[in-house]
Amino acid sequence: MDDNSQKRRRGTGGGAARRAERTQIRHEAARFIERRIPNLDILHPEAIEIIEANAETVLEEIGVVFSDNPEALARWRDAGADVQDDRVRLPKGLARELCKTAPARFTQHARNPERNVEVGGPNLVLAPVYGPPFVRDAAGGRRYATIADFRNFVRLAYMSKWLHHSGGTVCEPTDVPVHVRHLDMLHAHMTLSDKPFMGSVTEPSRAKDSVEMAGVLFGEDFVAQNTVMTSLVNINSPLTFDGTMMGALETYAAANQAAIVSPFIVGGAMSPVSVAGTLTQVLAEVMVGVGYSQLVRKGAPVIAGAFVTSIDMNSGAPTFGTPEAAQITFGMGQLARRLGLPYRSAGAFCGSKLPDAQAAYESANSLNVGLLSGVNFMLHAAGWLEGGLVSSYEKFVMDADQLGILHGLAGGVDVSENAQAMDAIREVGPGGHYLGCAHTQANFQTAFWRTGVFDYKPFETWAEEGARDTEALATAKVARMLSEYQAPALDQGVAEALDAYVARRKSEIPESFD
Amino acid sequence: MDDNSQKRRRGTGGGAARRAERTQIRHEAARFIERRIPNLDILHPEAIEIIEANAETVLEEIGVVFSDNPEALARWRDAGADVQDDRVRLPKGLARELCKTAPARFTQHARNPERNVEVGGPNLVLAPVYGPPFVRDAAGGRRYATIADFRNFVRLAYMSKWLHHSGGTVCEPTDVPVHVRHLDMLHAHMTLSDKPFMGSVTEPSRAKDSVEMAGVLFGEDFVAQNTVMTSLVNINSPLTFDGTMMGALETYAAANQAAIVSPFIVGGAMSPVSVAGTLTQVLAEVMVGVGYSQLVRKGAPVIAGAFVTSIDMNSGAPTFGTPEAAQITFGMGQLARRLGLPYRSAGAFCGSKLPDAQAAYESANSLNVGLLSGVNFMLHAAGWLEGGLVSSYEKFVMDADQLGILHGLAGGVDVSENAQAMDAIREVGPGGHYLGCAHTQANFQTAFWRTGVFDYKPFETWAEEGARDTEALATAKVARMLSEYQAPALDQGVAEALDAYVARRKSEIPESFD
Repeated sequence: MDDNSQKRRRGTGGGAARRAERTQIRHEAARFIERRIPNLDILHPEAIEIIEANAETVLEEIGVVFSDNPEALARWRDAGADVQDDRVRLPKGLARELCKTAPARFTQHARNPERNVEVGGPNLVLAPVYGPPFVRDAAGGRRYATIADFRNFVRLAYMSKWLHHSGGTVCEPTDVPVHVRHLDMLHAHMTLSDKPFMGSVTEPSRAKDSVEMAGVLFGEDFVAQNTVMTSLVNINSPLTFDGTMMGALETYAAANQAAIVSPFIVGGAMSPVSVAGTLTQVLAEVMVGVGYSQLVRKGAPVIAGAFVTSIDMNSGAPTFGTPEAAQITFGMGQLARRLGLPYRSAGAFCGSKLPDAQAAYESANSLNVGLLSGVNFMLHAAGWLEGGLVSSYEKFVMDADQLGILHGLAGGVDVSENAQAMDAIREVGPGGHYLGCAHTQANFQTAFWRTGVFDYKPFETWAEEGARDTEALATAKVARMLSEYQAPALDQGVAEALDAYVARRKSEIPESFD
Repeated sequence: MDDNSQKRRRGTGGGAARRAERTQIRHEAARFIERRIPNLDILHPEAIEIIEANAETVLEEIGVVFSDNPEALARWRDAGADVQDDRVRLPKGLARELCKTAPARFTQHARNPERNVEVGGPNLVLAPVYGPPFVRDAAGGRRYATIADFRNFVRLAYMSKWLHHSGGTVCEPTDVPVHVRHLDMLHAHMTLSDKPFMGSVTEPSRAKDSVEMAGVLFGEDFVAQNTVMTSLVNINSPLTFDGTMMGALETYAAANQAAIVSPFIVGGAMSPVSVAGTLTQVLAEVMVGVGYSQLVRKGAPVIAGAFVTSIDMNSGAPTFGTPEAAQITFGMGQLARRLGLPYRSAGAFCGSKLPDAQAAYESANSLNVGLLSGVNFMLHAAGWLEGGLVSSYEKFVMDADQLGILHGLAGGVDVSENAQAMDAIREVGPGGHYLGCAHTQANFQTAFWRTGVFDYKPFETWAEEGARDTEALATAKVARMLSEYQAPALDQGVAEALDAYVARRKSEIPESFD
């Protein structure tokens, strides 16, 4: 279905919806990043050869486990793997061969077609933090997340110019019972934002609910023919694919919805303590996960993921923004491109308990590496705190601001005649000043990225205004944004149908299912 | 003079010095970075061609001004330039041709030969902040810097494992009169550290004092035959070379001492508001400055510099860690390599008033760009705050900690048999855990970079210990370092001769010379 037909379909909301659209505040939203700068390839060809050969050896000699999933074992047996109990050993080349039918890029549709994202190729799609059970803000400190927090983070992502995606579990709404939590989360993404979003993966039936609810939002036909969700399927490293996560993958792949197949690795704990060893294991795991998605449905869209942190051997804590994490992110980018797959990695990762300097150094390191390593889908690009235990309101807007820098750097260097500015250099001459020259006047408004959070004022002004640090500036920005939020227009019939779906399923799903 | 002869020369200090060396606390010091990863080249060949051609046009049509410097004008006339009043116009190709005699790399010697640095090629030398009139720490707030602060920053740089260089004006000791300030600064670098350092550039006579004092420290013959200083010579952008700075350059070049020839640019004020225009001007300026050093003395060591920030058009403040600054840093790296010159750029730049998240995001952006753009000499790699107005104690140790990450990432990916870790993957198998395996036990101590500042503790422990943010952790680290500091051993005769040199010059230099 092309964009026109989607517009037609969405244009049937009647007069009320049209009036709502006319009075709508429209938040500026950047298009996903299309890089005009090269990726940095840090692995030399010999290193690639070694790692790829070792990954094949791992799959042939050691193999992987598909637990609680007899259907998966049957699929692997049919595909030519050696299956003993729940251990699957793959002849060399099989996994790589299976990966070939996965698309190198795909479109994830949003309910607002202007927000569609193109995953793969030179593109980078930025999505918010995923998974924390806690939230933090300056006023309330650290506390368990609620559905009210969840909705706030969806609103902030919707209003953040440089975030292209609404994400998934932006925090765990712990005040909603687990067995129906996915319904409230999906409802928030679908109604409070018009950006693309992720579906539930905690249970195959919840993945099915996600697909059905997307059908209510987009129309069933549209969902049958287009990818409208990109969901996060973690691998239990080392080398284990559990039935729950694979069940979600099966559901999404069968429905032609996208999944990020991602080893979740703390290096030294779930993988070897070396970069080359970790890359070997990650590559083996990704090839099996992606390959499996293609056994379920050839051509199903899938993203090769790598969530990798290093570890502090003193405390056992995962560590972020480290050189080893950077090397793995760069290296896996090269390996994913050689597989012809979109790549997910990096994020505003940090271990700090507060949105302070540690959090910012760690996050900036990872964000820069993410851009330059060719990541196509970056989850956790804003709001992550304390090793992923906390979604931070202040850090969310700080990180989201930094994402503008990635856009600017990725845009490459303009060498148009205007950008060459030879007339300006002639006009100003030695010892002159450019502030007043014609070229500066004509270009200054778009010339430089500008923060929406940081302080650039003179010291004295800043001191008079209370000598606020970044967290205090961010607190004010969060409050301003949430007070200005207006939901994007949604067809009233669709809104009612979504409410009805949630109500029906809440009455159907047994509580014992938690 | 080779290292052996230097050691012999330094071995003549007698029994007292030898006893001092035996009781010495030795601080761990990393060797300068030798990159084993590629640089990221963001300019495509056509962009390079345009910028290089435009820079030649600028030099031919517009030219540059050498103010208050008749000798320089004569040199340029002799070299074939068109000189009218103080305006020098260079025929196309002249500046680039002159740059060819500058060495692509050189050694800057330290009084401890283990601390010598190699500037150029794949190397990166890290030096501390330069120039701030203020200092800040959590206890004392922001205040004018004193010579006591200066000495403290020299001590911190000496003790910082990842800083290779003692720098120059680590802060302005405003309690020492300007006419003798350089003597106290040099004395601090020479006696409190054994790392390489920079000389004075604020007056040609102070550059001469720097060379002579280096003669006292290293021996005059050694200084005559070796480079022992790398000093910072700024260009007055746009396109102006003032007599004072050029006088310092002449002094250093004539003495075969190195200079960083660096446009100091706030884009949009001292250069066009576009990246391509700024690169054009920077390239033109650098070629003239480096070319001039070679007119003074063919083969004199020199570094092509680029200090470039963007500007906030609302406040006129320089801004740091921005995408435009990144593009210029990447681009100028390529252009410098095509000139065959060592390259200086980047640093722990930030505009924030506090060592907070803003400071850290901005600094981390620039540090990462500096590493990946092929910078060979990074000034301001630690301690810079508030647009360079402030040397921050806390930020100094935070930044210095981050520099370890650059070392790790630059080291490249080890693919030795040990690093491949195939036995570990076999031993652990699907679903296992690597923490206890033989490979982890054998490698964990060196496997991962580890912070010396940040907090990796569990939330509860961290909260019990006072819930300290990064600044508080850094305050404690600064206090610990300064309390543990011990000066490196110095031959007593040399120490006395340095004292005597400073005393004599202080009595000679007239106060009116401020």
